[in-house]
Amino acid sequence: MFAVQAYTPNSQPIDRSETVRLIDRQRPDWSLEQAFYADPAIFALERDLWFPRQWMLVAHASEVPEKGRYIVRQLFDEEIIVVRFGDGEDDIAAYYNVCTHRGSRLCAKDGRGKLLVCPYHAWSFRLTGELQSRQDLPASVDPEALGLHRVPCKGFGGLVFCGLDASSLPDIQPVADGLTGGLRENGLDRARIVARKNYLTKANWKLVLENFLECYHCRPAHPEYYRVNGHVKVTATRDADKAVEWQNEIEAWHSVIGDAEFHKGAWQAGDLDTMPFAMHRKPIGSGRNTLSNTGEGVSSLMGGRHAYDGGESGFRLGRLSFASAANDYVTLFQMIPRNAMETDVILTWLVDKDADNDVDADAISWMWDVTTVQDKKITEDNADGIMSRAYRPGPYTPLESQTSFFVQTYLSELRSLITGTRGATVSQWSAPKELFASPKAASCNTRL
Amino acid sequence: MFAVQAYTPNSQPIDRSETVRLIDRQRPDWSLEQAFYADPAIFALERDLWFPRQWMLVAHASEVPEKGRYIVRQLFDEEIIVVRFGDGEDDIAAYYNVCTHRGSRLCAKDGRGKLLVCPYHAWSFRLTGELQSRQDLPASVDPEALGLHRVPCKGFGGLVFCGLDASSLPDIQPVADGLTGGLRENGLDRARIVARKNYLTKANWKLVLENFLECYHCRPAHPEYYRVNGHVKVTATRDADKAVEWQNEIEAWHSVIGDAEFHKGAWQAGDLDTMPFAMHRKPIGSGRNTLSNTGEGVSSLMGGRHAYDGGESGFRLGRLSFASAANDYVTLFQMIPRNAMETDVILTWLVDKDADNDVDADAISWMWDVTTVQDKKITEDNADGIMSRAYRPGPYTPLESQTSFFVQTYLSELRSLITGTRGATVSQWSAPKELFASPKAASCNTRL
Amino acid sequence: MFAVQAYTPNSQPIDRSETVRLIDRQRPDWSLEQAFYADPAIFALERDLWFPRQWMLVAHASEVPEKGRYIVRQLFDEEIIVVRFGDGEDDIAAYYNVCTHRGSRLCAKDGRGKLLVCPYHAWSFRLTGELQSRQDLPASVDPEALGLHRVPCKGFGGLVFCGLDASSLPDIQPVADGLTGGLRENGLDRARIVARKNYLTKANWKLVLENFLECYHCRPAHPEYYRVNGHVKVTATRDADKAVEWQNEIEAWHSVIGDAEFHKGAWQAGDLDTMPFAMHRKPIGSGRNTLSNTGEGVSSLMGGRHAYDGGESGFRLGRLSFASAANDYVTLFQMIPRNAMETDVILTWLVDKDADNDVDADAISWMWDVTTVQDKKITEDNADGIMSRAYRPGPYTPLESQTSFFVQTYLSELRSLITGTRGATVSQWSAPKELFASPKAASCNTRL
Ligand code: FES
Ligand code: FES
Ligand code: FES
Repeated sequence: MFAVQAYTPNSQPIDRSETVRLIDRQRPDWSLEQAFYADPAIFALERDLWFPRQWMLVAHASEVPEKGRYIVRQLFDEEIIVVRFGDGEDDIAAYYNVCTHRGSRLCAKDGRGKLLVCPYHAWSFRLTGELQSRQDLPASVDPEALGLHRVPCKGFGGLVFCGLDASSLPDIQPVADGLTGGLRENGLDRARIVARKNYLTKANWKLVLENFLECYHCRPAHPEYYRVNGHVKVTATRDADKAVEWQNEIEAWHSVIGDAEFHKGAWQAGDLDTMPFAMHRKPIGSGRNTLSNTGEGVSSLMGGRHAYDGGESGFRLGRLSFASAANDYVTLFQMIPRNAMETDVILTWLVDKDADNDVDADAISWMWDVTTVQDKKITEDNADGIMSRAYRPGPYTPLESQTSFFVQTYLSELRSLITGTRGATVSQWSAPKELFASPKAASCNTRL
Repeated sequence: MFAVQAYTPNSQPIDRSETVRLIDRQRPDWSLEQAFYADPAIFALERDLWFPRQWMLVAHASEVPEKGRYIVRQLFDEEIIVVRFGDGEDDIAAYYNVCTHRGSRLCAKDGRGKLLVCPYHAWSFRLTGELQSRQDLPASVDPEALGLHRVPCKGFGGLVFCGLDASSLPDIQPVADGLTGGLRENGLDRARIVARKNYLTKANWKLVLENFLECYHCRPAHPEYYRVNGHVKVTATRDADKAVEWQNEIEAWHSVIGDAEFHKGAWQAGDLDTMPFAMHRKPIGSGRNTLSNTGEGVSSLMGGRHAYDGGESGFRLGRLSFASAANDYVTLFQMIPRNAMETDVILTWLVDKDADNDVDADAISWMWDVTTVQDKKITEDNADGIMSRAYRPGPYTPLESQTSFFVQTYLSELRSLITGTRGATVSQWSAPKELFASPKAASCNTRL
Repeated sequence: MFAVQAYTPNSQPIDRSETVRLIDRQRPDWSLEQAFYADPAIFALERDLWFPRQWMLVAHASEVPEKGRYIVRQLFDEEIIVVRFGDGEDDIAAYYNVCTHRGSRLCAKDGRGKLLVCPYHAWSFRLTGELQSRQDLPASVDPEALGLHRVPCKGFGGLVFCGLDASSLPDIQPVADGLTGGLRENGLDRARIVARKNYLTKANWKLVLENFLECYHCRPAHPEYYRVNGHVKVTATRDADKAVEWQNEIEAWHSVIGDAEFHKGAWQAGDLDTMPFAMHRKPIGSGRNTLSNTGEGVSSLMGGRHAYDGGESGFRLGRLSFASAANDYVTLFQMIPRNAMETDVILTWLVDKDADNDVDADAISWMWDVTTVQDKKITEDNADGIMSRAYRPGPYTPLESQTSFFVQTYLSELRSLITGTRGATVSQWSAPKELFASPKAASCNTRL
């Protein structure tokens, strides 16, 4: 490890105009300069400008199963309370975990009740946020103005999303419209959690995403993933023979499951005013039923399916959340930036709500656990190397096109947010468009 | 816990004029904005301007019982040496724990000797501070200028006070004049230490004081304290029936101990040039003899008392030190700011110097230990919540009037210190004045 | 320990012109003001301007014994790879441990191979630095520009030196010319490592050097070193009788080993454009054969010597590296600044490469281990004391003249580097010149 882990700032801190200058000198299709991965001033800009525009997956609906249940969760650098306030499917609200009296943390942990009660002076709040107890207030104070601070919150298809700032967030309804069907077909709305794990990664959140969005590293870094997943034949190498092999395998799978199933997909690249999302299906490959070590099933079939078809559905849920649905279990991914050099990567595994109570959680979590442990290590090594004064941006290869597209999008958006003007449009990356125009080829193009 | 504990600064650091602007927009009787509880730049201003004006309780005189004994103690962010240099009662001096040769820490721990000897190059200093060893000095250097750096120091009534800067500190003599009698009557001058404990609290020092100065939180947060102390009938709730109960109890107590004893009290609100102090007595209540779990005595009577009267004497000793004297033991409180987000809270328990050697230290420390452990938790939760971007100042209720007064005083003083002018006077808080004008009511008004 | 270990910055950060103002007000022959020992802004200036001009001892040649062997080492705040790329004695190169693809750390630990392979996407590099694997690159990218980033590297006399910046480093050849003979005569070129230890010292690197360059502290702080080393008679005290004793002892030793041997020495004070170095010999004293607890030998004689002569050769290797050669073992010293308040002090012990495999490493490392453990403690106490607001620079005594000279040199160099002009020349310290003009006296003048 490097002796100096902490970022040693320049004599002069980077300000907004300096950041714009930095953005403008980044070379398309090359990795970013060190400051973007390490400088707390740039992280502060992201925190103030970019994060408030991102919807984040914060929970599965089964975590607040009935009225009065509340949970304490992380939303970027904030702790929030997600509460089911009524009996309707959509009766979920979220609040900052902050008392409006003198600011105490309100809920220490998950719980249930008719009121949320502050541990400091016992102010109590209704599940719908209003201040309940008013007897101690000075007469001059309006209790109506002392309700809990709301967090924008939206549930669909079994998933619960929150965002920091109602005035900055894009409309999430098109994503709900685009993905709810697919989420239900994969059983997300009738699932329960069997495992959750946080892989705290000592690296900037963009390095975590850069890693997640390409499979070029899958051969050297992920022997298990490389063995199990057929798509690495075209996502991890550029090898004409293997590409033909994979093409044949896809066509065979296609002929079995039929076009209808295979074509299911949706895609929105996203920009400052639009929440990006995507959904697509591909075979795992080699006749495997699910993403397990043996290829054999590890839980009950989900989504009303009656037989294994060996497919995996991948979901992009905004910029920082993802889901992978095999036939019998689902993995949720949350990337939560902590600071310029640390990111929480939280994985949650779900099975059908009626699956056996003694399903083997280790078998279910095996694929993504072993892979994420490896990703944590290589991403931290990446972050370490970037701290060197010798680090220079390097070229993304064709196998890293999604990573490159993410970086370009990020730069363009941050620039617009700093300058308050819509800057030069990001040249639209063509691969994702092809993803669903020509699904047989495009399904190869992503790890997810 | 919040993932991000460290304060994430704004892009532009707060400077002095910005701080004045912030001070001026604080709303009277509402809690402060986040920056006052978290910003290192504001803490740096406090450290440079406000702390040097505060006398701090640093030791009990029994810790330096005879000539040559010295102790190493904390004074704000400084380590100091308190030494008894002579046989007179007042022969106590204090020095910064810094050698005048190349700056080494001088004393690693408490000790005794005729000289203070530096562990680095063995320069030695007299107990009165002068450099003793001079043989190695260059001829051009004046050894008289190389004595230890003095720390202003004053002892009275068994307590030892120090402050950082002689030119900024207010006169402490009026406090000595006002409190020495009361301290002696409670036996402080003939006491010995039986326990000491540091409750490192991860919260700004003002949050620690805000907590200490109100009992509104006593019912939800301190079940033991609430059970033992009668005054919570009026300090923890606003309940007419309980107020009458308490009034009756006070009058009964009053009729037993007599006016002379009860009226003992002194009060000085303090301002930039005056050290605040206070002393008052009240009954513990419910016929309890002392502040113990059972109400029964836990050590010998102090201050020459011949029988329990069930009272507690409360002392304010400047802004950051306090004492509570029950009939048979005394508790000292030191609040020591470490940085913008950490405060040492040190409690020291004393008994009569002739008390049995096997007094039960756990029984003696029970009340304030259990209470301070709880206060540490709720104050840290308060600090956590305030770090949220959703935090907004909230209204102090009538039961938090002393807290509100402290905050107002602090703002006014910091403003004056930054601008170099005496700003708008803090509107004098009326309750403390009544404290001794109408003792029967006023004794209800404070936790201490 | 002080409660506040972290440096509490001033409201206004120190910039370059402020640093020049600070430099100009430092008093010659007095220790530096606090900022030089604690301020991260001044450390950042040193990191940007002063460190890149320093050659640093990074390894012994035996650590890369044959072609393909590589080691991962620390060079200031950088991790570097030192690799033997060919069969020639000088075929050693060094690279920043950073992949030129996306910046991953390249080598996790020491190893051997024909290529250096990145763990992330398996890019491979030749031992001579060029990118080997090119098949995945976009066509527009020139693979010749993606070789590893070189670190200036030079080996001589068994030692390997590196520096951060080829354009800033002084010529090291005069040092190789001046010291290779002496290093060989002491067997450095035919040695192997028996022990290595890192004494992480929580103090600014200049405090570590100030400590290392004087023996005034040897009597109070190093009882073992004081007992074993005769030179303390004149380096640790100013005592006429002891000086005569030592003079007699030197003359006796001199008459045995002969003038030729004794006069071996070289000295270059160094300045911005010249790498400082020195070599001299002196007797250990009291008839001791080597620097061991008993004075008896602890390993085989080195450098082709046939009998113990009881001498110690001291080497200065630039500003931050040193070596001490007794007749039968060698100690290397590396001082590596980590940040404004932490310094790695790495000691390496070597013996003749043909010495017994079961030499007693504890006996060999005893003298400098016990001494360095003590130095770590007193230097950390020095750093602690300097953090006080009461700290003021103090006078260096005549026994600290080398320390004072180092401080003067440092100030002068930093000033020149900031202003870009050659400032007032440091008044040449006269003692080191005498070191070799009058060796019998001068050998007394240094601890090393
Ligand atoms: S801070 Fe919540 S009730 Fe006071
Ligand atoms: S630093 Fe105290 S004697 Fe040198
Ligand atoms: S970062 Fe080294 S191969 Fe990609």
